[in-house]
Order: sequence, then C-alpha cells, then structure tokens
Amino acid sequence: MDNLEIQRHSMAHVMAAAVQNLYPQAKFGIGPVIENGFYYDIDFSGCYRGASRQKAINLTPEDLPKIEKEMKKIIKADIKFEKREIGLSEAKKIFKNQPYKLELLEDIEKYGTTQALPQNVSENSGKKFSGKVTIYKTGDFIDLCRGPHVKSAGELSKLTVKLERIAGAYWRGNERNKMLTRIYGLVFKSESELKKYLEVLIEAKKRDHRKLGQELELFMFDDEVGPGLCLWLPKGALLRQQMERFVIEEYQKRGYQLVMTPHIASAKLFERSGHLGFYKDGMYSPMDIDGEDYYVKPMNCPMHVKIYKRQRRSYRELPLRYTELGTVYRYEKSGVLHGLTRVRGFTQDDAHIICTPSQLIGELIGVIELTKYILGVFGFNEFKVVLSVRDPKNKKKYLGSDKDWDLAENGLKNALGKSGWKYEIETGEAVFYGPKIDVKVYDSVGREWQLSTLQLDFNLPERFDMAYIDKNGQKKRPFMLHRALLGSLERFTGVLIEHYAGAFPLWLSPVQIVMITVGSAHIKYAQKLAEEFRALNLRVEVWDENETVANKIRKAEKQKIPYMLVIGDREMKSKNLHVRKRGSDKVEEIAKKKFMESIKKLVESKSQNL
Amino acid sequence: MDNLEIQRHSMAHVMAAAVQNLYPQAKFGIGPVIENGFYYDIDFSGCYRGASRQKAINLTPEDLPKIEKEMKKIIKADIKFEKREIGLSEAKKIFKNQPYKLELLEDIEKYGTTQALPQNVSENSGKKFSGKVTIYKTGDFIDLCRGPHVKSAGELSKLTVKLERIAGAYWRGNERNKMLTRIYGLVFKSESELKKYLEVLIEAKKRDHRKLGQELELFMFDDEVGPGLCLWLPKGALLRQQMERFVIEEYQKRGYQLVMTPHIASAKLFERSGHLGFYKDGMYSPMDIDGEDYYVKPMNCPMHVKIYKRQRRSYRELPLRYTELGTVYRYEKSGVLHGLTRVRGFTQDDAHIICTPSQLIGELIGVIELTKYILGVFGFNEFKVVLSVRDPKNKKKYLGSDKDWDLAENGLKNALGKSGWKYEIETGEAVFYGPKIDVKVYDSVGREWQLSTLQLDFNLPERFDMAYIDKNGQKKRPFMLHRALLGSLERFTGVLIEHYAGAFPLWLSPVQIVMITVGSAHIKYAQKLAEEFRALNLRVEVWDENETVANKIRKAEKQKIPYMLVIGDREMKSKNLHVRKRGSDKVEEIAKKKFMESIKKLVESKSQNL
Repeated sequence: MDNLEIQRHSMAHVMAAAVQNLYPQAKFGIGPVIENGFYYDIDFSGCYRGASRQKAINLTPEDLPKIEKEMKKIIKADIKFEKREIGLSEAKKIFKNQPYKLELLEDIEKYGTTQALPQNVSENSGKKFSGKVTIYKTGDFIDLCRGPHVKSAGELSKLTVKLERIAGAYWRGNERNKMLTRIYGLVFKSESELKKYLEVLIEAKKRDHRKLGQELELFMFDDEVGPGLCLWLPKGALLRQQMERFVIEEYQKRGYQLVMTPHIASAKLFERSGHLGFYKDGMYSPMDIDGEDYYVKPMNCPMHVKIYKRQRRSYRELPLRYTELGTVYRYEKSGVLHGLTRVRGFTQDDAHIICTPSQLIGELIGVIELTKYILGVFGFNEFKVVLSVRDPKNKKKYLGSDKDWDLAENGLKNALGKSGWKYEIETGEAVFYGPKIDVKVYDSVGREWQLSTLQLDFNLPERFDMAYIDKNGQKKRPFMLHRALLGSLERFTGVLIEHYAGAFPLWLSPVQIVMITVGSAHIKYAQKLAEEFRALNLRVEVWDENETVANKIRKAEKQKIPYMLVIGDREMKSKNLHVRKRGSDKVEEIAKKKFMESIKKLVESKSQNL
Repeated sequence: MDNLEIQRHSMAHVMAAAVQNLYPQAKFGIGPVIENGFYYDIDFSGCYRGASRQKAINLTPEDLPKIEKEMKKIIKADIKFEKREIGLSEAKKIFKNQPYKLELLEDIEKYGTTQALPQNVSENSGKKFSGKVTIYKTGDFIDLCRGPHVKSAGELSKLTVKLERIAGAYWRGNERNKMLTRIYGLVFKSESELKKYLEVLIEAKKRDHRKLGQELELFMFDDEVGPGLCLWLPKGALLRQQMERFVIEEYQKRGYQLVMTPHIASAKLFERSGHLGFYKDGMYSPMDIDGEDYYVKPMNCPMHVKIYKRQRRSYRELPLRYTELGTVYRYEKSGVLHGLTRVRGFTQDDAHIICTPSQLIGELIGVIELTKYILGVFGFNEFKVVLSVRDPKNKKKYLGSDKDWDLAENGLKNALGKSGWKYEIETGEAVFYGPKIDVKVYDSVGREWQLSTLQLDFNLPERFDMAYIDKNGQKKRPFMLHRALLGSLERFTGVLIEHYAGAFPLWLSPVQIVMITVGSAHIKYAQKLAEEFRALNLRVEVWDENETVANKIRKAEKQKIPYMLVIGDREMKSKNLHVRKRGSDKVEEIAKKKFMESIKKLVESKSQNL
C-alpha cells in the first residue's frame, strides 16, 4: 500500500468511528480502500433517528454532511490508531455485538482467511492464519483489520474528504445475504484534485456505456436469458463484426492460425488442465451427458493444447500461434455484474503461442508490438504497463525451473525495453505458473482500463506433456504464451463506447452515412445514391420518414452517425453532395467522387477523425 | 411407404426367418427399412455353431452367403406373410422367448408407443395404442410389426438382394445396453442397380470426410473434450472462415441484420419458448447459477425473439431479418455420432424473418432464390425439394388459425412455383407449429443430403406475444420464419468434403498455392514471390524442406492444393511462372501478371474450376 492508500484506508476507519458515535447500534461489515477513496458497508437496521425510538434508520444523502462533520472532529482531536494482535477468543468477545465481524472471525478460524470477501479487502486475505488477528482501535471504534494505518487521525487533516454517495450492497456480494448500506467516500490530497475528479465523474456519467448502449441500440440484457449474458443488437453486432475482422486479419497476417473449438467439454479435460482444481469457483456447475460431467469452458487454452498435441511436432513447425474468437463463460456474482464490462459470458481475442526457448524473445517482441498497434488503431495511445515477476525469496511456490523463469522474465524485460514502453515491475505478483505483462490504457477522460494480457505458462505444457522434437531428435518441452489483446470483446466494446462517448470513428460506426430526405419526391434519388455508397461497402441508411429535416438531423446526431446527407430539390439538381459532419453545424458542398474517395480512405486507414 | 420400401421391409423379415431357421436360438431386436435396403439387429449370443455345443456364435461375413441361400429358399417356397391383430397378453405369450420384443411390448403397454426406438423404425411409433398389436408370420418366424408387407415371399423373387455387412449396434442405440449384431442388406430392383450402388459406395469410401478430414488436417475430435464436439484445425478453420464470410455477407447484402447471442440461457427462456416442454430430450441437463437452472441452447430462436421484443415495433420496421452464426448444442446418442455430419454441437447459418402477412410471399421468394444461389456457389445444382403441409383432415393437432395456415401453405407453393423448383408435397408431414420446405441436394456422386430448411412458425409469436403496430395503430401478430441454408456448418463441411473429394475450389482451399523450392538457393526468391501473392489476399505456403521436388509434388497432390509453383534455377531466370495445376501432370508456363489476374478472378467469382 502506498501512503495515500494507507491514508484512505485510515479515513474509512475515521468514518466508521464517526458513524458509531452518531449511531451506536450500527453493525459494521467491511471497509476497504478503493480507487480514489474507500467505502464501508454498514447495517443501520437496528438504529434509530433522533429521540423517536420507533423507526429503524433509513440513511439518506442528507445524513452524510453530519457524518463528515463528526469525522472532522475526530481528525481535529487527533485520535490515535492503536494496533493490537490478539487471540481469537478475545476478538470474539470484543466483537460480540458485531455479527458481521464475528462471521469474518469464524472464517478466519475455519479457513485461515476471510476468503469469501471481495478482492479489495485487506483483512488477512490470502495469508496463512497465525492464531492471532489484528485489531485497530480509533477512539471507541474497534475494527478487525490488518492495516497498515496512520499513527493518529491528525495525519489526515490536510486531505480533502467527501462522502460521495450511498448504495445498497449485499453482505459479501451475495444476494441471499442482507443488504447493507454502503457509504462511498472520496479522499484526495487537495480540493482541486477532488474537483477534477468530480468533473471526470460527470463526464463519465454522460459516457456510461450502459446508457449509450441502450440509446445507440448496441446491446441488451434480458432477465429470461439471464443477467450478465449479453445479446448483441444489430448495430452492436456490426460494430463487433468490424472489430473481429480487423483483429483476426491482423493476427493472420502475422502468422497466427485461426482455430475454432467447442464451448463445452468433458470434466476430464478440465481436470487435466487444472481448471477444476484451481479455478472451480469461476466455473459453472456441470451438466450430465451420458453419465459424464461436462462444463461450459471458462478458458480456451486446453482446447488449443489439444490441437497442438494432435500430432508429433517438430522444431521446424514452431512457433505455432493459434488464435480464436473464443467465447467463455465464467461465474461472477450477480452483485458485481456491470453492463458489458463485467459479464458472465464473453468472447476473447485469444491466442496461444507455442515456441522454442530461442524463439521466446522474438515472440514476446512480436506480441508487444502488435498490442501497441492494435490498441493504437482504437485510439489508445497512453499505456500503463506492469510486469509481474516472481518473488525471488519464495521460489518454492512457483512452478517451472529457475532457468525457465529467468529466461522468461529476462525475455519480457528485454522485449519491453525494445518496445520503448515504460513499465513497472511488481515483484511477487506473478501467478504461480508464470510471469506476465498487463497493459492498461487511459481513455479520453483519463480513466485507466485493464485490457491486454501476455502471460507465460509453465503449467499446461507440464500437465499435457507438450513436446516437440528438436534438431537433434530430442524430445523437448516448448514454451507456451497466452495473450489476449482486446481482452474480452464485450468489455472492450464497453470501454470503447465510453472512450468515444459513442461517437465511433467512421470504420467502426454501425451506420456511417444517413440520407435525410426533405420530401417524398426525394426518396427515390436518395435510395439510388445510397446504393452507390453501399457498392463501396459503406453502411448507409435512408431516412425517408415524413418528418422535418431538423428532427432527422437531431436524431442522427443522437445516434452519432458520422455523415448526414440532406437530399432535397437543391441537392438533386446539383452534381455535388451537401454533407454535414457529426457534431458540426456546417454543411459542406463537395463533389460526389471526391467525397466517396475521401471516406473510403478514412475507412481504410481506420482514421480517428472524420 | 412406396412399393420398393414395402418390398425391402419384407426382405428384412425374410432374412430374419432365414436366420431363425439357421440359428433357432437367435433373439431378434428390430429390423427397419433404410435407404437402399434394410438392417436387422440380432442377438446371437445364445446360438451355437454346428455340432459343438461349447461356443456361442460369433457371426462373420463368411456366414452371410449361407443366410442369403436360406433366404432364396424361402422366396422360392413363396411363403406367405400372414398378418394378425392380437391382444397384448397373447403377444407376450408368442414372444416369450424373445426378450427384445417383450421389451417393446412393455413400452407399448406403458407409453402406447415404442418411443425410444431410432427414427426409422415403423412399429407403432407416434401412434396412440389401440389395445391391439400387429404381428406378421412368415413361416416359423413371427415379428411384431405394423407392416405393410408383400402378400408372400414369392413377390420378392425379381429383386436383387445382397447381405452387405455386419456391424455391432447397441440395443436401442444406447451404449449401456447389450451390443447386438446388425446385418445390413441391400435390396435393389435389378442387378445393375445394385452394381451401380456398390460403385458409388466405393467412391463414397474414398471420399469419406472423416478420413479426408484427418488427412487434410481440417478437424479433429478428442476423447477428453468429448465425442461429437468438433475442434477445427487451422486449415478447417480457414475453410469455415471463407464459408462464414461468404454467407454472412450475402445475407447482409439482402437486408439481413447480424446479431450475436449467448450460448447459455436461463430455464425461464426455454420454458417460455416451449423447448423444455417439447424438446427436452434434445437438450443437455441444466447447470446451476445462483440457484437457477441454465441450459446450453439447442436453438437460437428464442434469443432472436427477445431482440425483436426489445422495443415496440411498427409495420414500418418490417420485415426484420435477424441472422446469426449461432452455435447450438443438442443431444445425440453416442452410437449415432458420425464425423461432422452427426455431432453434438454445431453452428447454424441461422436466420429468423419477422414480417407482416402481406410481406410473406415476397420473403419466401427471397429465401428460396437465396438458397438456390448459395447452394449453387458450393457446386450443388440438383435439388430435391419437399413441401410439408398439414393434414387437412386432422386440423386440431396444429397450432395457428386456418387462415394463417392457408396463407402460409399457399405462399410456400406460390414461392416454389416462381422459383421454378420442382417439389413434392407431403401432406400431414408439417410439424404442429407450421408448414416447411426441406431442400436436399445431390452431391457429385449422386447421394442425397438434407441441407436447407425453411420453416414457418405459429408457435413462438404466440408464446412470446410478438406484435407490431399496423398502419391503423392496431396491435398485430407478425409471421415468423426460421431458415438455415447451409444448415449446420459442421454437417455442410462434411458434405462438402465428400462432394469435392477434398479438392475444394480455389476460393475455399485452405492453401491455394504452394511454392516448391528445388534447392536452398531458391528459398529467398520463393518467399519473395509468396509475399507478392499474399498481398493479393491469397493463401500461400513455401515448402523449402530439403526433399525432392517429386516428393513435394506428391504431398501437394495429397493435400489437394490447387496450384504448385516449382521454383528452381530455370524459374528464377525466367520472367514467367511455371504452374502445375492440381490433378494435372503438365506444367504451364505463364506470365506472372496474367496468372495473378486469372487466379484473383477465379477466387472472386468463386469458380468451380481451376
């Protein structure tokens, strides 16, 4: 945790302490640090407002300033954060009136961890249970928490804090549990940083892909189909078709071989791959076929391994690069589903590269260059790159030999160096089966999105006994690399919608040109013109409804259609076109041929500009 | 049943009678008519060969002539086929030593039908049980059978019969049951017809897509993935990519809108659609998500209905044509799985057309014209078209109004008339929810394959309350049409492989050109040349292995690569290319530019010829 994160986490405790002062009956869930601040889940159902002892409290946004005021008091009083390590039985006594904390203590007792907690929670997660738990005391408020924290609340006095909003959140994200009140707090170093953040937030709200996706008719969800399962509407499918073709063709140009594999497979496959051992929580329950368990696949990898292993492979065949637009299904709690960016089924632009040790660096460079190129075409030019390597002090927890890890990690550094990308190294953050590179992009309003991943894998080659015959006739184990550049097409589309605020570049726009007829006399001409554009593989609509031109233009702007061609008497007489660009008030007169050439070029070059 | 079918079925009884004469302990399963003849499943495990009482018989092909001889005796003796209708208890007495027949009788008693039988079986299937069963007696042999049959065996004397082969077959196609001996018999009107058929069979064996698919590295199956679940290898995926692009683009040109929907959905959807009520046997068992049942989808229809129902629809929006390359999963018994032509998961070039009554004929004509065009591009120009209409004497069993049925059936006839297609009408063969057209093609060796279907649906619009607002503001029910032209891409590919014997036309060939280098001095030049072809979007390989040219040519012929370019000293010096076409011994010298233009043209026109 960096300093600001520690301060934000401490601020969560200060808020909880303030809440306890104001509502002594409050029961506390968890209160982790998140991006830009913290939240705390609190059960107010046993609390009463004011003197009336009749009504359980229903916290409203109007209550937040009161809590903020109480927080300021605590900070001003410079109340200490006192840390203690205590035994379980003492902890249970301390938290005897805090049922949620007691539940966490029981988990720690049973599993050594509060494993069912959401990812961001810091309490003990992933650690072996030492027999002791850590608590922090801030005034009268005591929390079960690993910390670290500031020494005393006064250290937080220079920060700007704003309790942002209230939301309902099921305890532990499980909809069968009670719904608690989640209070979100923003914490920044200065007032101006907060202000800037709030501006981005307003902009982000305008760009919300769930709202735009609805308005632009890109995708839908349906309760009878199931939450988190996206249906691509015609315009969304057109967008995705462009994306799919573009990436697959680029991969094919670079020697990737397209493959296609089923969406279900026998348990035998996922037992062998280790998914049933290590990834079962992310998988759906099995279905039965002829008395055998089958699963919808959470990943494509084992199927690609099967294709590799179909025949004896020689070093002469390597590198082999298998790519697939593979749709996978993974379990997400219903509480965390979010539009296209967090779903239960998604399609990856997946690929697996299988190569010899001496080919590894070349392949890594290839993937990094390709990532840069592909993301650039979608208008992402600022990246945050993280290289996760193993913890050299704890080598036992990793699969694969020292030699292979060194080769892989050095290869990744080397390739990153050649790419010119700045990157951060996170030591100990590699998964047990290999090092990886994560690529985040910054969108047009400066938000970070995790998109591409490049992951070395020492696990599957072992488990499936993958091999090739080298120059000397010896059987050797190849290197295996997973990579997905867009990541998930669903998530990527969600990000794209927000990045472009729905105003896609020409090549991606579901409708590229709309013909707006003035009256019924102009319909035939508009249709003829539309056909001429369609012959150039452009996507054109003719809006011949009996509506005003101004209305149609408003609609076209709302649908973010790049070009509007108004067709009336004047336009029919002229040999030139009268073109209105998205977002512009001006109508430009331009020769038909010139316009056609220019937009063909924009599409072919996948230009960001109209 | 036509006359030949009756004779073939009667021949099955004659064979069974012959078997019973020769092996009195034989237990009989079922013996249906199939294409070109019949089979009979028989349990020989209680039989003994010759005088030795030690050994249960293991029927071999060498035993077949003996059975044929016995059959001839029965035919010559002109033994009568005696039909009787008897009660169940009498039947049980008659078949007391025939356990398989007893099992069938029990099913009839319980369900009124021998419902678990394979499709081709005629006994009582689908009929209400009358309390009586029909038996046929032929000499000493008695069978449980609805008939009809010839009056006596002598009627079969002019036919040519040949017991073709023996295979193992699980009782009722279920691998948990005992494996019986299936004897296949071919029955033709004349010796010459049989001979012709056997020639086709030999040719078909050479073209077997399972064998060619393996040799050409198009697809694979894997036990750990699961039987009937196809993995498309790189070359097969390239082939499928061409097919997919072609059909989707053709559909889009004709105003179809691409959509994409998930492979799993909640039970709620399939309850509403009726699939769980009427189609459960074809579906896999459910998986559990958050306590709710989910299924892998057996069809795409209900998802397309959801997209339609997303918003209120006006007559102005119709017709709507949704198309999807939708992968569906359906249960097939493991015993009937067969390469790509009978699988457990497949991708349909599916579409649903939703239109007003007045648009119906136009849409039907459109689909038929499109079917003709699409199948023609794949080299299928001979069709067998069947129109299935309802049984006018039994209207109660069908959904939908008389008016709608008349409109639909007349529409289909009208559209078929305009298409110039000859067609047969099968009265009473329509499914309960609408009439349909099935299109079979004849492949290059004259075999029939069911490919395209066009199905009217009065069921889903009702169940999902689909509607549109007509000109007068009234809510109306639209017509809905299912259509798949290739049918299943897996099955279609299987058929294509056999149709072309693996020698695909240029546009479909996974590898279109191979550069065959003579020596290491020619590799660089070959690679440069390959790049020039690749720049034209052609699929080229360079074979620079240290092997003889003759060897490489043999391999290229085996892989059915359309063009071979040998690159040696002579070719490097010449400005012309030296081209060898697949299946030809000649090498043609041709100017590079001319060759490039000519093959570009062949690809673009999707020519059948090189």
